[in-house]
Parts: sequence; C-alpha cells; structure tokens
Amino acid sequence: MHETAAILLSLFVIFVAAQIGAEIAQRVKLPGVVGEIAAGCVIGPSALGWITAEQIVPGTPLEVLAEIGVVLLLFSVGIETRLADLKKVGRSAFLVGVLGVIVPFVAGSLWAHHHGFAWNKSLFVAAAFVATSAGITARVLQELGALQRIESRVILGAAVIDDILAMLLLGVVTSLQVGGGVKIGSLLFVLAQAIGFVAIIGWVGTKAMRRGSHWLDQPINPLSPLTITLAICLGLAFLSTEFGLAAIIGAFLAGMIASERPRREELEHQMQPLLAFLTPFFFVLTGAKIDLSVFANTEALWMLAVVTVIAVISKFVGGYLGSMSLGRNGAAIVGVGMVPRGEVGVVIASLGLASGVFSNQTYAVIVAMSLLTSIITPPVLAVLLKRSAEPAAPVANPE
Amino acid sequence: MHETAAILLSLFVIFVAAQIGAEIAQRVKLPGVVGEIAAGCVIGPSALGWITAEQIVPGTPLEVLAEIGVVLLLFSVGIETRLADLKKVGRSAFLVGVLGVIVPFVAGSLWAHHHGFAWNKSLFVAAAFVATSAGITARVLQELGALQRIESRVILGAAVIDDILAMLLLGVVTSLQVGGGVKIGSLLFVLAQAIGFVAIIGWVGTKAMRRGSHWLDQPINPLSPLTITLAICLGLAFLSTEFGLAAIIGAFLAGMIASERPRREELEHQMQPLLAFLTPFFFVLTGAKIDLSVFANTEALWMLAVVTVIAVISKFVGGYLGSMSLGRNGAAIVGVGMVPRGEVGVVIASLGLASGVFSNQTYAVIVAMSLLTSIITPPVLAVLLKRSAEPAAPVANPE
Repeated sequence: MHETAAILLSLFVIFVAAQIGAEIAQRVKLPGVVGEIAAGCVIGPSALGWITAEQIVPGTPLEVLAEIGVVLLLFSVGIETRLADLKKVGRSAFLVGVLGVIVPFVAGSLWAHHHGFAWNKSLFVAAAFVATSAGITARVLQELGALQRIESRVILGAAVIDDILAMLLLGVVTSLQVGGGVKIGSLLFVLAQAIGFVAIIGWVGTKAMRRGSHWLDQPINPLSPLTITLAICLGLAFLSTEFGLAAIIGAFLAGMIASERPRREELEHQMQPLLAFLTPFFFVLTGAKIDLSVFANTEALWMLAVVTVIAVISKFVGGYLGSMSLGRNGAAIVGVGMVPRGEVGVVIASLGLASGVFSNQTYAVIVAMSLLTSIITPPVLAVLLKRSAEPAAPVANPE
Repeated sequence: MHETAAILLSLFVIFVAAQIGAEIAQRVKLPGVVGEIAAGCVIGPSALGWITAEQIVPGTPLEVLAEIGVVLLLFSVGIETRLADLKKVGRSAFLVGVLGVIVPFVAGSLWAHHHGFAWNKSLFVAAAFVATSAGITARVLQELGALQRIESRVILGAAVIDDILAMLLLGVVTSLQVGGGVKIGSLLFVLAQAIGFVAIIGWVGTKAMRRGSHWLDQPINPLSPLTITLAICLGLAFLSTEFGLAAIIGAFLAGMIASERPRREELEHQMQPLLAFLTPFFFVLTGAKIDLSVFANTEALWMLAVVTVIAVISKFVGGYLGSMSLGRNGAAIVGVGMVPRGEVGVVIASLGLASGVFSNQTYAVIVAMSLLTSIITPPVLAVLLKRSAEPAAPVANPE
C-alpha cells in the first residue's frame, strides 16, 4: 500500500507542477510546453528533488507513463496529418531529413575530433548530435494550431526520415567503435526493413482505412473507433521499436492511418483529455533529467555552450537548406523545428557512457545539450510561426 | 530501448485482450467488464502467460496504470454523484456499510475457527471477507447507465463507510494477531481521522466548488476545468491512502466535489476517452491475478467453494438487511452490488501470507475468492438492474 501512496504523490506533484509551469509560460506568451519542461527541471533531482533520479530511469512507472504520453501525442499529431498532404511535401521532407542528419553529423565529428577524440569515437559522439526528437516540436505546432501548415508537414515527414537515418547511423558508429568493420550488406538490409515498414504501414494502412473504416463502428462499444485506433497505435509503436525505430514513429503512422477515417474530428476531440492527462508526464520528466550541476563547472559550461551552438546551428542549416523551396520564413520554421534532440540524444549519450566512449562530463554535457535544444526551440518556433500567421506565403509549386 | 519495446507490447496485448473480451461478453449480454476480467485470466500467468507474474506485483508500471485506471473510474463515478443525493440515502448507506462489514466478519470468523484457526487468527482471516471493492460494481453501474438510481447511491455511500470500517478492522486484527492488545484510544483516533477526512473533504470541498467553480476556468488552458479536477483527484487519492483508506475513496470524493460544477456534463464527457484507455488495465490485471491452479486441487477447490459461498451470502445479507427500505428488488441490487471484494481481499491475504497466518493454499483460496466475487457479481447485477429498469419503485420516504 505504501508503494501506491508514493506513486500517487509523485503523479500529483508532477501533474500539478506541469499545470503551474504551463500556466506561467503561457501568461508570459511562451508555449506551455516550455513551462512544463522548466517545472520538471525545478522539481527534478538536481533542484528540489521531489522526483528522484531512481524514479526516472527506463522501465519505471513514471517513465512508462511519459512514454505513453509522447506516444499518444504523436498519435494525435498523426490524426491531424493525412498521407496525401505528406506526399505533397515529399521532396522537401526528404531533403530536410537527409541534410538534417548529414550537417550535424559532420559538424559533430569535426568538433569531437578537434576536442581530442579518435576518429572512430568522434563519429560516435557525432551520432548524439543527429537525431531529432519530434515530440517537442509536434507539441508546439499542435498548441499553436499550426499542424495544417506546409512547414509542419515538412517537419513531420522529415522526422520520420531523420529517425530512419539516425537509427542506421547509430548502427554504423557502434560497430566502428567496437572495432568491427561496417557490413554494407547488413546495413542495407536494416535500411530496407525500416523503409519497408514505414512504406507498407503508411500505404497499406491508409488504403485499408479509407476502404474499410466502417468496421471501426461494428463493435458494441460506442467508443470503438477510439479504442481500435488506440490499439493500432500501441501495436505500431511496439512494431516500430522492433524495426529499430522510435516508438513515436509507429504512433505517428497509426494516427495518419486513423486520419483517413471520415469522422476524424471525433477522434481528435477524444484525444484531447488523454493528452491533457498524459503528455505532462513526458515533458516534466524531460525537464527533470536536466542535470543542473553541469552549469556549476566553468569548463563544462563552456563545453556545453560550444556543443549546443554547434548542435543548434548545424541542425538549423540542414533543415533550412532542405526546405528553401518554402521561402525564407518557411525554411527558418523548418530549420528551427528540427532542432530539438530530446530523449534520443540522451539515449545515445547513455550508450556512450556505458561503452566507455564518453567521460561522465562529456555525458552530462551531451545530455544537457539534448535537453537544452528542447527548451530553446519552443519559444523561437512560436515567434516564427506567429510572425507568419498566414499559411506560408503562396508557393506556386512547393516541390 | 528494449524495456520500452517490452512494455509497449504488454500494453498492446492487454488493451487488445480487453477489447476482445468486452466485445464477446457484450454480445452474449454480459457486462463488458466480465469479458475484460476473463481476458486477463486467459492472458495471465496461470494460463497463456502473456502477462507474467513479475509484471503484476505492486509498483510495476502495469500495476500503476491499473491503479490510475481504477482511480479515474471512481473519479468519474463521483462526478455523476452529488453529495446532496448521497445525503438523501445516508441512513440506508450507513446501515449497508455497517451490516455489510459485521455479517461477513462474523461469518468469516466462525468459518475460520471451525476450520481450525485459533481465534486471534480467525479474526484475521475474517478480515479478508470484509472489504468491498467498489471498482467492479461502479463500472457495471456506469456501463448500464444506472448511476442515478437510488440503489447506486446507497452502494457508493456504503462503499465509503465500508472502507473506513474495514481499515479499522484490519488495524484491530493485526494487533490481536501479533499478540498486542487493542488500544481503544488509538483506534478511536484513527476512526476520527478517517471520518474527519471524508467529512471535511466532502463538505468543504463541495461547498467551495459550488461557490467558486468559476476559477476552474481562469487558467489559459481551455481544458483547465478537467486538468484542475484531475489534479484534485490525484491529490485526494494520495491523501486518502495517508489516512489509511483506499485511493479510490479519495478519487470518488474528488469526483463528487467536481460534480458541483455547473457544467459537469462536460467533465463526464471528457472522462470517457480516459476511462476507455486506462480502466481496461485495471480489469485485465484483476483477471490476470486469478491463480487457475487452485482449481486443479480437489481439496482447495472445495474450500474455495465454501469460502466463496460464505463470502457472497454474508455480504449479500448485510447489504440486503441494510437497505430493506428500498423494497425487495432494490435491497437485492444493493446486496449484490456490495459482494465484490476485488483487490482489497487480495491485499489482506498477502499480509496474512507474509505474517505466516495463512498457508499458501489458504492464501490462494482467499485470493481466488476475492476475485471470484468480482466475476460473479457483474452478470447478476446486470440482470437485477434490467429487471427493474425503471428508477426504483416509488418509495415515499427512502429514509
């Protein structure tokens, strides 16, 4: 019974902190998500300690709730994104995804090598600069009602491509680091699998839903369209991890499939309370993972500043170059939207620490950089989106 | 990342099993909750093993999700229950609560003593016969749209009183069992605390909400009435565990407070997707805890049959006697509605096993009895409710 009490208290503290943080942020015209992350930072282990470090390691109940929260978030973003719309921006999304991986990877490797890492280890460090985490940007786009904008579609499409490439890259640098050669054949196989997964689920799923969505209403349960699509969401989130991709990619695809349902507004509406209850756990825990003690050490602080600047600029440049067809402002929105690294950078940093590539300080800096990019992005993105409140300046042919 | 994949797979399996179970149950005119519990039994450790025994011990992510599910369920039941309506049935609810504790406790003690337990241990065994678990009945009442019936209010009011008495009783039998005397003074203090908690929260909370519900709409977040009342729900669920009560009592009180809000239909509506997503975890896990191997042993099976009959009849009689003012059918509904013991009996049985009062077999039987009562109740309750589909036969003065 004591365990129940402890977890209920944590849930209460996290949920209330999120509400207060979001409210304050919105009062000062910042996206609510900034307040939720900041609230996590305040109540987290490195400040007030109301959430302890043991509570936020993978597999704990709070982490699972956070994971469910971000999975449902990307699912609901998927519901607002139709495959047809995504296909229209396919070329831009592809360019953004590819350049948004290459530029930070090159920049990261150069920095790491300059910093004294051997080349094989530098490539590993650079991998932590690469993967965009779509959760933060998706939340800002949704909060500001901007998911129907062309830039949002480019960002979401690019996030899928980014995740596939990051997964491949991680495979390559891991085998280089342990001294193994890179087997092009097995890499191509992994790539083909991932692309096949996304393509088949995306294509076949949306087609099936378009033709047969009436069976969603067959069950007795009046909420069955919601429960069936939620089941698909959980199933695809799991499946995408089996293909080496992030769970949120599968959730996003599931949402996109559900968006083919004629009455998709109903689903969007029903997702609101679920998001309101569950996503705060993700953002508060993201904030709670920021180790504020990094900021107390001048050397580390300086390294953090350099690393963060490189991470932000390189990703921005990649995204901007890939989406120049959207015009300057559009390209800037896409570039900024790709900046957050979030938990993906944290995962790679943990691998680096575990395998002895990173020192504790490098680890802390990489983690702090990943999370800092998540904090920096929302306000900038909000300003850019509001400055061009109209759907992107008319572009004759976005491709 | 592997942990994430494993938990996503479990979530998917549980959620899908719940949907299939509920659908089948409803097709054969049983309440959906029966199907969810049965589904849990099928995929649980003692049958298919798709959920393992380690995944359903307290503090695991699945258990926490289940706990959140039942907390939200009782919260939403509270939203449909106004304090004023509850007060009208106060006398019946009190009688049902008190008799529903005394009769099973006496019957349970007699059985245990007859079965060879010393008196102090018999009282401990009997404690496992006592506590009604409101979750199952609440779900059936909600599923059948019967929460506005007078019998439902009596059951819900009685569940609160039942929980207070069961908590006290557990304190008494525990100290008797470890050989300590019963300190009337400290018992009265515990009782006063619990009653004080319920009364103050109920009274002051509803009054405050009636006068000041406009501040729920003050925050920027358009979903703020929902998020604020959810925060109150988590907070009171935690607080009630601090007073020795079940978390669901606090959640129910929170819902009752929220029901004083003028636009409470909006909250009821918003709770639907949350319940659809989260409550299946509670009911599937309830089913998964049933150890089917008990049924393979003739002696244990016989003992289980006797214990279950005693548990069902004694609780039914207590509830029936306490609510005779509702007429025969009404009293029968209340009597049946109080029968499920659910996880409360399981908790007491675990304490008994840990302290050496119970053998493994007695433990398994008590747990199976607690869960069997939860499976038996919904279909019977559904039949009784449908037989008298009109709001209880006109009673001049229910008090």
